[in-house]
Amino acid sequence: MLTTEQNELLTRTGPGTPMGDVMRRYWMPALLSLELPEPDGAPVRVRLLGEHLVAFRDTSGRVGLLDEVCPHRGTSLWLGRNEENGLRCVYHGWKYDVSGRCVDQMNEPVDFSHKIQVRAYPTEELGGIIWAYMGPAELKPPSPRFAWTQVDEPYRYLSKVWEECNWLQALEGGIDTSHAPIMHRMLKKNASQPGIDLDSPFVRGSAPTLEVEVTDYGYRYFGIRKMPEGGHYARGYHFVMPFTQLRPSAPMVDGHFWVPMDDENVMVYNWGYTYGDEPLTPEESTERGAGNNFGTDVDVDHGFKAVRNMGNDWLIDRGLQKTDTFTGIQGINTQDRATQESMGRIVDRSKEHLGPADRAIIVCRKLLADAVSTVADGGEPPGVAPTYYTIRAIDAVVPAGREWRDEILDAMYPSEPASYFSHEAGSLSLD
Amino acid sequence: MLTTEQNELLTRTGPGTPMGDVMRRYWMPALLSLELPEPDGAPVRVRLLGEHLVAFRDTSGRVGLLDEVCPHRGTSLWLGRNEENGLRCVYHGWKYDVSGRCVDQMNEPVDFSHKIQVRAYPTEELGGIIWAYMGPAELKPPSPRFAWTQVDEPYRYLSKVWEECNWLQALEGGIDTSHAPIMHRMLKKNASQPGIDLDSPFVRGSAPTLEVEVTDYGYRYFGIRKMPEGGHYARGYHFVMPFTQLRPSAPMVDGHFWVPMDDENVMVYNWGYTYGDEPLTPEESTERGAGNNFGTDVDVDHGFKAVRNMGNDWLIDRGLQKTDTFTGIQGINTQDRATQESMGRIVDRSKEHLGPADRAIIVCRKLLADAVSTVADGGEPPGVAPTYYTIRAIDAVVPAGREWRDEILDAMYPSEPASYFSHEAGSLSLD
Amino acid sequence: MLTTEQNELLTRTGPGTPMGDVMRRYWMPALLSLELPEPDGAPVRVRLLGEHLVAFRDTSGRVGLLDEVCPHRGTSLWLGRNEENGLRCVYHGWKYDVSGRCVDQMNEPVDFSHKIQVRAYPTEELGGIIWAYMGPAELKPPSPRFAWTQVDEPYRYLSKVWEECNWLQALEGGIDTSHAPIMHRMLKKNASQPGIDLDSPFVRGSAPTLEVEVTDYGYRYFGIRKMPEGGHYARGYHFVMPFTQLRPSAPMVDGHFWVPMDDENVMVYNWGYTYGDEPLTPEESTERGAGNNFGTDVDVDHGFKAVRNMGNDWLIDRGLQKTDTFTGIQGINTQDRATQESMGRIVDRSKEHLGPADRAIIVCRKLLADAVSTVADGGEPPGVAPTYYTIRAIDAVVPAGREWRDEILDAMYPSEPASYFSHEAGSLSLD
Repeated sequence: MLTTEQNELLTRTGPGTPMGDVMRRYWMPALLSLELPEPDGAPVRVRLLGEHLVAFRDTSGRVGLLDEVCPHRGTSLWLGRNEENGLRCVYHGWKYDVSGRCVDQMNEPVDFSHKIQVRAYPTEELGGIIWAYMGPAELKPPSPRFAWTQVDEPYRYLSKVWEECNWLQALEGGIDTSHAPIMHRMLKKNASQPGIDLDSPFVRGSAPTLEVEVTDYGYRYFGIRKMPEGGHYARGYHFVMPFTQLRPSAPMVDGHFWVPMDDENVMVYNWGYTYGDEPLTPEESTERGAGNNFGTDVDVDHGFKAVRNMGNDWLIDRGLQKTDTFTGIQGINTQDRATQESMGRIVDRSKEHLGPADRAIIVCRKLLADAVSTVADGGEPPGVAPTYYTIRAIDAVVPAGREWRDEILDAMYPSEPASYFSHEAGSLSLD
Repeated sequence: MLTTEQNELLTRTGPGTPMGDVMRRYWMPALLSLELPEPDGAPVRVRLLGEHLVAFRDTSGRVGLLDEVCPHRGTSLWLGRNEENGLRCVYHGWKYDVSGRCVDQMNEPVDFSHKIQVRAYPTEELGGIIWAYMGPAELKPPSPRFAWTQVDEPYRYLSKVWEECNWLQALEGGIDTSHAPIMHRMLKKNASQPGIDLDSPFVRGSAPTLEVEVTDYGYRYFGIRKMPEGGHYARGYHFVMPFTQLRPSAPMVDGHFWVPMDDENVMVYNWGYTYGDEPLTPEESTERGAGNNFGTDVDVDHGFKAVRNMGNDWLIDRGLQKTDTFTGIQGINTQDRATQESMGRIVDRSKEHLGPADRAIIVCRKLLADAVSTVADGGEPPGVAPTYYTIRAIDAVVPAGREWRDEILDAMYPSEPASYFSHEAGSLSLD
Repeated sequence: MLTTEQNELLTRTGPGTPMGDVMRRYWMPALLSLELPEPDGAPVRVRLLGEHLVAFRDTSGRVGLLDEVCPHRGTSLWLGRNEENGLRCVYHGWKYDVSGRCVDQMNEPVDFSHKIQVRAYPTEELGGIIWAYMGPAELKPPSPRFAWTQVDEPYRYLSKVWEECNWLQALEGGIDTSHAPIMHRMLKKNASQPGIDLDSPFVRGSAPTLEVEVTDYGYRYFGIRKMPEGGHYARGYHFVMPFTQLRPSAPMVDGHFWVPMDDENVMVYNWGYTYGDEPLTPEESTERGAGNNFGTDVDVDHGFKAVRNMGNDWLIDRGLQKTDTFTGIQGINTQDRATQESMGRIVDRSKEHLGPADRAIIVCRKLLADAVSTVADGGEPPGVAPTYYTIRAIDAVVPAGREWRDEILDAMYPSEPASYFSHEAGSLSLD
């Protein structure tokens, strides 16, 4: 449970908000590389932390990310012409380079473009994502080199989808392991919709005990399920501040970024990679059954809006809910979005009743609130330093008599190139 | 005319509002029985007095009416699974029975469901309607046994339609007899759209004189029209607090409930029955021409939205308005909705100019305002006690030399089973 | 740049606002004559200065412009019956003549219609437009006899289109000559979309120097461009308070009225006439390429909404933007609307950076702000007195060694019927 004030504090990320100040200390996924497929192509609107931006790839291949509003008279630069290393406003022909400098004016007899600057954010392109840094220039962190970004393209996948609610309730759904084998299960073999198999240890295990251990990047957490045949099924995850999750699917790691578009909309980035030797199969790289595939699940041409969305009740099928899947909703990630969006744009956390199975969520909120204090006091929040570069999510079925921690913890921190991170569990008071 | 403050007082019915406190003392139509056609079927969203609810029929046939929001994390229970005498949230498998008790949790190693309760309202099923009582448990009134609910199904009809304005202006349109033969008239024989016939005493009579007599359930009121051939046409109605009207159509009584969904939307229930010996003809039971028929007039699958609605200008036909009907709008009740919705979501009563023909409306507002005071002072408002069970609406053409009151008043209060009501006219100061 | 307060002052025109008081001193275009094509036809909704009105042409051909709301109970008079020199509310049959007097009541036994009045505004019909005067009766100005209204119909054209932003940013786009040869240019011969030819003096000339000279009706202003071959291209315009522009296109004058519907919507009236001897060709009178043609560009049946509008990104074609036209948007006026609407409903002028090429805009704001003070002090703002009746917009290519002013100024003030206006340039302090 949060008070209304705490709920506001954690959910609002616009300019000038405390959580917005925290967010602006990290590299943020702004858009996909494939949205800017070529130099001098069409500019793209970007909504990030409540700001209206426009992205373009210039003649040299560099990506500019500018305020959408032309500083002259306020016209949208999205209408602009992407010309010779600059974006030119169509209204009076003022032109800006990727750094936001005005480099030309067509309508003035005496050019004063050197006095004009549009706000621009630095970008990096990594793993098929164009990342932006929207914070103070002197505090820009190292590149967001998640291990996933370091493998070759055949070894990873990437998609994104617009979810119509606040970023935090989407994130909370992601780091909540207890719901997964309940909500996502199939009710029978050969169900007409994909889901988690009744035979999987995920479903056959008991309701999980959660352990959460704070680290310098966020925390690692474990869902431990007793198996009917003895032993445990242990799943080890990572939460990287402020909005990243890694989950195990050996020999793959899957993950999400829940990036605030504004306080009532979140862009969910979905990614995964294999640390095995073989590239992803087509099935693995198209996220079969996940509900995030471009075209069938996500309308790329309309802002990456979900085909099954709040406006059409996620196309729930009550008949299939009786016989085939727990929800009757097609797509595992669609099921997540349905429950999260059904809470309303910003869920009222003053009315909730949390239990031990919600421990990862409770700790996450505590970390976020602490980060607000840290940043307000001039400090650096967790996860800015690059201690998360090689971490992995790992799960295992652990036979009776063995200690689950011995089986998975080391594998969650592979050695290469591990010199620059520490993974000691920190302490955190939750009272 | 009302002041802006009075207008707010009478129109707002959400939780904690004075008029909301009044409304919560009565049984409220929540949905139709046919919306929950079978045990363990799909749950249904219900919007009532500004509250978001979900209704379901359990395995035993009982109807639950719960807060839509799961007390755990806020997911909509409308997504839920209707399973073995309970509605189960799909997110973490928490399950609630019709009384709102949490009876199971799937995600917690140590079940604490006995500590969890979702708000639930008692329901009754009567006359094809599922009624809800949303007030203090100890003040629950007797069942709403309108005479209409006591006849067998072939002797009655029932429909409902969503109207896009505040409940009070819809109600005021219903208890306003003076408009009916004007707005609803046909301009000629064999008009292409149904309406009130020019030959009817309703139209041939003069503009009406209104008499309103307060009773212990609300009031009875009369529209008295002088006939050109001498004598009068007298129509006797009832208004039952807080939102019920009965109108005469011998040997039938028709009526409406105007039930607030929220302050800007009202669900209009339309019903009628015969006190004659013959069941309704198909024409009578499908409300021929009324504009409320499911399918042709009302889109049952989209919240009972009217096919002819504010968004399409009620499909007004200006040609037919010249030649066939007074409004050019198809359906008598559609005409009512058009005029009421055209006022805006909540009409500004500080700008109106009422006359003697609006007397029933004036008295209704006075009764509602008095009920607010009564309830605020801890008293019971009119119409909670079951004194309305057998009342009837009656009209008659009364020849010259006869007193209209002698002709219709007794018939408005048939004896059986009349022992438990009094129909003495009360006094009400309107200054 | 304006402060937020100044921006509010100039943009808001609803009842009781300072700028609304200024606007109400002028005749306002309310609707087109063709919207009321016949006596006793269908009434039409009109949104003007934030007021909801209904217009009708009565049996005698007179035009009534009334408050939309019936003073009885608030029903929309747009639903009304247009009958025998009056508009009759369909609810209770109260009837109003063009002066707003209630002349009949159908529902009251004792008629009190003589006590009822609905607000009505005087109208005039001139040049295919129905004009309204919404200010104090004793201050009603002479008729708005723009020269354009004085020629026969074959010599003029007229259209209108709904633009989805505040009136002032639309007006500012109109009086901004510097953008025209930039934004509206074609990139090559035989471009697939119309625009301004690269060979025109408009495009071949340099960025313009602006001169603005205040007059008793507003101001005249000049865009002076140096030609590469020597000499100048001079364009002389007029701005008539509060929202009229005249621009040169010899032997034609084109113009716009930007009439506030409310603070977030403006109805743009587009007109032109020839002062030559020949009537307009079909090409001239259909505004070929302008983006304002009924049917292909403007959806007359849906409030004169633009076919290419904000909701569909003005159907921008990025391919054509590369090769054919500067914007890739079809229609010169559509291009204007796109840039103006892209600023948001009310542009934030506290963030703009104006230059010398924006001088006409700066002076316009100053005139408007002065008019607010003048009206607040009980005075008459510029442009109310009919000093603008014969003014003309004129352009010319002026060879080297000649003074552009000598070439065009006199022609901007033709003599007939010039006795009643003075065109001395006034002085205006802009600091």
